[in-house]
Amino acid sequence: MIYADNAATTRMSQTAIQAMLPYLDKLYGNPSSLYAFGQQAREALEDARERIASCLGCEAREIIFTSGGSEADNQAILSAAALGARKGKKHIISTAFEHHAVLHTLEQLKKQGYDVTLLDVHESGLITEQQVADAIREDTCLVTVMYANNEIGTIQPIAEIGAVCREKGVLFHTDAVQAAGHLPIDVKAQQIDLLSLSAHKFHGPKGIGALYARRGLALEPLIRGGAQERNKRAGTENVPAIVGMAAALNEACAGMEATSTRLRVLRDRLIAGLDQIPYGELNGDRTQRLPGNVSFCFEGIEGESLLLLLDDKGICASSGSACTSGSLDPSHVLLSIGRPHEVAHGSLRLTLGEDATEAQVDEIIAAVTDVVSYLRGMSPFWRDLMNGKRPHVFAE
Amino acid sequence: MIYADNAATTRMSQTAIQAMLPYLDKLYGNPSSLYAFGQQAREALEDARERIASCLGCEAREIIFTSGGSEADNQAILSAAALGARKGKKHIISTAFEHHAVLHTLEQLKKQGYDVTLLDVHESGLITEQQVADAIREDTCLVTVMYANNEIGTIQPIAEIGAVCREKGVLFHTDAVQAAGHLPIDVKAQQIDLLSLSAHKFHGPKGIGALYARRGLALEPLIRGGAQERNKRAGTENVPAIVGMAAALNEACAGMEATSTRLRVLRDRLIAGLDQIPYGELNGDRTQRLPGNVSFCFEGIEGESLLLLLDDKGICASSGSACTSGSLDPSHVLLSIGRPHEVAHGSLRLTLGEDATEAQVDEIIAAVTDVVSYLRGMSPFWRDLMNGKRPHVFAE
Repeated sequence: MIYADNAATTRMSQTAIQAMLPYLDKLYGNPSSLYAFGQQAREALEDARERIASCLGCEAREIIFTSGGSEADNQAILSAAALGARKGKKHIISTAFEHHAVLHTLEQLKKQGYDVTLLDVHESGLITEQQVADAIREDTCLVTVMYANNEIGTIQPIAEIGAVCREKGVLFHTDAVQAAGHLPIDVKAQQIDLLSLSAHKFHGPKGIGALYARRGLALEPLIRGGAQERNKRAGTENVPAIVGMAAALNEACAGMEATSTRLRVLRDRLIAGLDQIPYGELNGDRTQRLPGNVSFCFEGIEGESLLLLLDDKGICASSGSACTSGSLDPSHVLLSIGRPHEVAHGSLRLTLGEDATEAQVDEIIAAVTDVVSYLRGMSPFWRDLMNGKRPHVFAE
Repeated sequence: MIYADNAATTRMSQTAIQAMLPYLDKLYGNPSSLYAFGQQAREALEDARERIASCLGCEAREIIFTSGGSEADNQAILSAAALGARKGKKHIISTAFEHHAVLHTLEQLKKQGYDVTLLDVHESGLITEQQVADAIREDTCLVTVMYANNEIGTIQPIAEIGAVCREKGVLFHTDAVQAAGHLPIDVKAQQIDLLSLSAHKFHGPKGIGALYARRGLALEPLIRGGAQERNKRAGTENVPAIVGMAAALNEACAGMEATSTRLRVLRDRLIAGLDQIPYGELNGDRTQRLPGNVSFCFEGIEGESLLLLLDDKGICASSGSACTSGSLDPSHVLLSIGRPHEVAHGSLRLTLGEDATEAQVDEIIAAVTDVVSYLRGMSPFWRDLMNGKRPHVFAE
């Protein structure tokens, strides 16, 4: 099996599993307990917080643990919105290609009277800090722009947006679920106020994430109850997963430069190979993208069939986000960069992991080339394109 | 070490750990992925849902997975409140000794114009269905009463309350975090509409829980984003933890009768032993309580000192809920059953696990007797009591 869907989830690193195991088994104390056995868990929890903070360039007390990226996104945005409302500021700026954890939360806020501006994304899948600056109003309380896109992998100018927001006194949140562990993050240098991450995207466990909130920024709890996480997130702390997340993030950050360099070469080899398929095009900027991300649209192809046939060949790939897999609608991300509906349906996302090899990349290229050709051979839509009954979207 | 704080958290069962491990390691696919490797995770997820449903007497599709009991409580109550508001019904009935995951959510709803009636709890730590019936009004949308109390272990007449609510057409939620895996649950027979549980309270993993919602009852998402859990709970499903939870719940339910019988004997032995300590009293009803729960108040004792000295003797115990351990306030549960402030401060909760032995119970009795006597010897407050300068609360 070639697993090329690391944006959906990753295999846990052995380091992370080994770090977790003692806390799943013998060291099961509740960190809120007074006795030494509980305090031992407390120490592991606080040590993990320190280690995660040091990977992000913040202080330990600026980190709270959540059940994942979606919860962190929800809490960050609702908190910033509540802070804004107290000052009479109810305008939020975001982009059209955010994750649904952001977009659906914004939809909810719109029902509560917030005004939301979604910035247009260019064909490259990038926005500019100038767009953000132009959109900021007197009543803007929050800018939320994802660090790297989960479908097309494009990396936004985070530090530049951070500078604009700080200068204008507007809070800046970034959904860094795809970036953490894969791209350098320094929340102070990048002037980020709120940042969400999820462990299972960087070889940590599922069901755990973190929210960085700049010191002094009063988070609203999303889950109310106990006094855990300084009253900002109720529920017994998931110590094993938190310890696993810290181990995974440390490992990812330590190896980031070497991994990125290696993955970029493989990514570009994969892009070059798939570029040979006629009437297909890379989605998103060619260089400003995650080291392991390749996303293509092919004319005359139904994404689902493509994935199933690749699966037959032992290749795990996706058309876009796993989070919306129940839906028949084309990806909002691909529509946002201007792909027409019929082409957005023929999308393929391949996200390489740390252990990907050149041979695997070549196998993927051959398989995709085969499958695309096979599917087009069966497609009336494709015949119409080739007979000139429909216009092509892409060049040959 | 004698671990007598199983209400705070439990050691994972080896069955649950072994069930989880493959999904932490090799079977890491995202269940929302189309390829076979993802679908393998999907099958494990749905199998776990079936198994959990069968333990609760409901259908698989009536279960959604959450990050724990607090999240489930929050979502259940907010959902029922939203449904009520749509019908112009904004009155909620609960009790004074609920977990804070319930009480803090109700506080939040009060700010949004809901009217909340908290039923008085009797000295026994029990409420009656008649109290519920008397409190129900035309505009009541929800009754939320915990199944078994997390501090004093008292078990409420759930089926009777369920019958009252069903007859009056009011939704009934129960926080069953302390009950699941320890007491028989049959949501259909008990006429429960919403029920919350948490895996780490029955030897499952931390960071995972479930919310049962009767078919047709439209839950509001608390965490918005992806289409997971039929759009009711966003975020990549925590497959390893879900599989571990199902294994733990099955195991707990299979062994429940034998374990309960054994634990009740040990519990009553522990109660009888601690009853020998003068000026102390059991909290909550003597028989209508969780099989492993013993909760006492001792006059002239500071709970924290008691716990630290017991810890020195290798006994892990608590004064009340671990969730509020940051707080210096006396337990709201103990106040609700009429314990005065100064006595509520001298509380001790001992919650026995499946592997508790008679010898351990006797060791606990000896240790508590020693420590209480030692602490009283140092306490000016105790001297005042003995000199008649202050009135006793309890008989000798």
